[in-house]
Amino acid sequence: MQPYELSLTAAADAIRNRRLSPVELVDSVLDRIEKAEPHLGAYVTVTAEQARRTAREAEHEAAHGRHRGPLHGIPMGLKDLIDVDGIATTASSRVRADHRATADSTVAARLSTAGAILLGKTHTHEFAFGLTTPQTRNAWDTGRVAGGSSGGSAVAVASGTATFALGTDTGGSIRVPAALNGVVGLKPTYGLVPRHGVTSLSWSLDHVGPITRTVEDAALVLTTLAGHDPRDPASLALPAVDYRPGTGTDLTGLRIGLPRTYYFDHVHPQVETAVRHAIGQLEALGAQLVEVDIPMTRYIQATQWGLMVPEAGAYHEGSLRTVPGLYEEDVRILLEASELMSAGDYVRAQRSRTLMRAEWARMLEDVDVIVAPSVPMPAVGAGQETVTWPDGTVESVSDAYVRLSSPANITGVPALTVPVGHDTAGMPIGMQLLGRPLGEPTLLRVGHAYEQTQPARALATAA
Amino acid sequence: MQPYELSLTAAADAIRNRRLSPVELVDSVLDRIEKAEPHLGAYVTVTAEQARRTAREAEHEAAHGRHRGPLHGIPMGLKDLIDVDGIATTASSRVRADHRATADSTVAARLSTAGAILLGKTHTHEFAFGLTTPQTRNAWDTGRVAGGSSGGSAVAVASGTATFALGTDTGGSIRVPAALNGVVGLKPTYGLVPRHGVTSLSWSLDHVGPITRTVEDAALVLTTLAGHDPRDPASLALPAVDYRPGTGTDLTGLRIGLPRTYYFDHVHPQVETAVRHAIGQLEALGAQLVEVDIPMTRYIQATQWGLMVPEAGAYHEGSLRTVPGLYEEDVRILLEASELMSAGDYVRAQRSRTLMRAEWARMLEDVDVIVAPSVPMPAVGAGQETVTWPDGTVESVSDAYVRLSSPANITGVPALTVPVGHDTAGMPIGMQLLGRPLGEPTLLRVGHAYEQTQPARALATAA
Repeated sequence: MQPYELSLTAAADAIRNRRLSPVELVDSVLDRIEKAEPHLGAYVTVTAEQARRTAREAEHEAAHGRHRGPLHGIPMGLKDLIDVDGIATTASSRVRADHRATADSTVAARLSTAGAILLGKTHTHEFAFGLTTPQTRNAWDTGRVAGGSSGGSAVAVASGTATFALGTDTGGSIRVPAALNGVVGLKPTYGLVPRHGVTSLSWSLDHVGPITRTVEDAALVLTTLAGHDPRDPASLALPAVDYRPGTGTDLTGLRIGLPRTYYFDHVHPQVETAVRHAIGQLEALGAQLVEVDIPMTRYIQATQWGLMVPEAGAYHEGSLRTVPGLYEEDVRILLEASELMSAGDYVRAQRSRTLMRAEWARMLEDVDVIVAPSVPMPAVGAGQETVTWPDGTVESVSDAYVRLSSPANITGVPALTVPVGHDTAGMPIGMQLLGRPLGEPTLLRVGHAYEQTQPARALATAA
Repeated sequence: MQPYELSLTAAADAIRNRRLSPVELVDSVLDRIEKAEPHLGAYVTVTAEQARRTAREAEHEAAHGRHRGPLHGIPMGLKDLIDVDGIATTASSRVRADHRATADSTVAARLSTAGAILLGKTHTHEFAFGLTTPQTRNAWDTGRVAGGSSGGSAVAVASGTATFALGTDTGGSIRVPAALNGVVGLKPTYGLVPRHGVTSLSWSLDHVGPITRTVEDAALVLTTLAGHDPRDPASLALPAVDYRPGTGTDLTGLRIGLPRTYYFDHVHPQVETAVRHAIGQLEALGAQLVEVDIPMTRYIQATQWGLMVPEAGAYHEGSLRTVPGLYEEDVRILLEASELMSAGDYVRAQRSRTLMRAEWARMLEDVDVIVAPSVPMPAVGAGQETVTWPDGTVESVSDAYVRLSSPANITGVPALTVPVGHDTAGMPIGMQLLGRPLGEPTLLRVGHAYEQTQPARALATAA
């Protein structure tokens, strides 16, 4: 096994025990980037020299007995909305062609302090406003979409070109590409991970979180990312938590909500089969299934768009007026649409969110987690714009991709996607676990318990 | 001295010591209503029979040794936006002609449990959307406006037709009429007093609070009103606090912010003189003055209107479509204007509020309270629509009335108005004390210290 194939947890163990040096690991991943990146297009920028230099420093520290913790010497990618001092934050947009960040975002600073090593900046659907990431190809089939908007991060983690990565999630942008590339993605509770220095799409829905190979890896990264930062007005003032799950797999006493509505409507049969099989596995570990009715489902789509479009429009107001031609057409049209929305529409979306949060809180009094598919179907072919469901309903691919993830953005509850197998074409399928606000420890415990019952997953091999 | 002339604190002492019975007190206030109300128009509904019956029950309880606390047997008025089971909540509007509340609002229930006795519902500017309360006349000069929107409550307390009252405050609607009628008004911290069962004007700016004759009275009422209620999504989950201030008047160590900008611009000279004189009194008590610069003053008016108009429009959407002719013209025009506002305007107002809150928090790190006039000028004659300042600026009366109070609504900080004298025409003048979020104890301490240095105030005598 090559170092680039190691999970974050395995690599961290090897570095701590000095069986692996940060230099070996970074070199292995950079070699893998050199080979795979031309086929995948996961990165906007690769900072190879800087990564090698930082790896030597990390090795020097380790040799002198200074070990910063589990991220010491671990190479990672950051979605190119996340500022790193001295490097451009392009947001994968021509609008940002001349950009250069002059300070680290909070999450970049925290990762750096923890010893993680930046490999480069990963592609996003332009300004995170889309669910395919057209610059990037799926790690399992380069003819298919990566999913988005954190497509570069998910493909890098899935293909071995980053040991872990960060993404952002406004309607599903961590979970969708993680599920479509067979890796783990966590959208934390709203306000848990500070967004200072991260380009905004829609501030009331935006989240930053990890994309990793295992649930345990996600817990390690979250432990470093979480914590109050007054520079993000939504940041929660909470004490530090160690999110690493225990090793037990007994789920006796855990109440799992199985949605009777919404989450299994218009879902690809192979996705449904894989997710229900994984749910059976959770039952076999002792969890009790309780049927739940998802509230206010008719309002989900309108609320998501009613919040996102005007907030995105406000953020881009200036450049939309001065350099509209520099946006890709799909994004420009969405931003221009925001000018037609009335204050009443936005007010109604906010009221709907308040009610939806209260209804979800009520539902989550009865169960510890809710299980569902992450995305209703596997990755589609690049360029496919719609999907036709067996009842004849035609849905745009982006509407379908966002449909099962946006409730967690609207309500702010944490949501974790875990790989639960592949369809007959070999494309990955993800199961989503949703929890109570600040219920990350429970989500990670359940996800980790599930993973321990499964064989170790291999990296994607399309490139 | 007649019982109706007693402050809440004095009446409560007399009832507790059985020198005064709830029946005597309620009868005295009802007699006063009978005499004064035809000249003042403070009440929409007087519930005299019910008040007398409740007073007899309160007397019976007191005679049998059951004393509910300082509000036991105290007669009070509720602004007619506040639901009381079985009584109409008219909002002083023809739109609500057939309305009848079927449950108590949280504040009405809490006052009732504490032993307070409802005298009736007081007039508001229609749906609280205005600053004059045209149905009601000023308690000091019936040819002048009462101020609004809680005009009925302020006039009732000032004239002796209620021992205390509740108002609501979205841009100044407690403080403006309290100041213009020479009584005390407290707009608490946003979220401290639950609004469940109170007709909304603008949910992100609305507050419920007391109007009383003394600062100590306000503290007694606030102690009963404050506390979490999950039915108001903005309600803060906080432990109970006894807000009654101590008797000390020493303000040594207190840092008082004196605004260098905004709060003394376009202020009537007699108002400025009275407020600066009162500030001198606070200095004489040991407080230290520190000059402060009010942040983002150019954004205050646009932010207040940018939040209020769309939220009010959303609330009235249905009836504005079905029965527009039932609204008064001034209110209907404001509501109709909301349909023309874009989502971008509302988003910008929300962003501006977020920044303003952060800037105010920073300013309030340096000082304990901020002192300012409550309203830039005394009550104007009924029908006067504009005011012309010495530099030639013409301002609408409602813009002038809201100008110094709306910052506390936008930022959510608590604000107390205390009477500080009268102009040469005999009209009252109020000083405003603004504090940190949840800084009510400090505001009440400073206001109470000031009051103790002043002679007792008499009731208004216009009626």
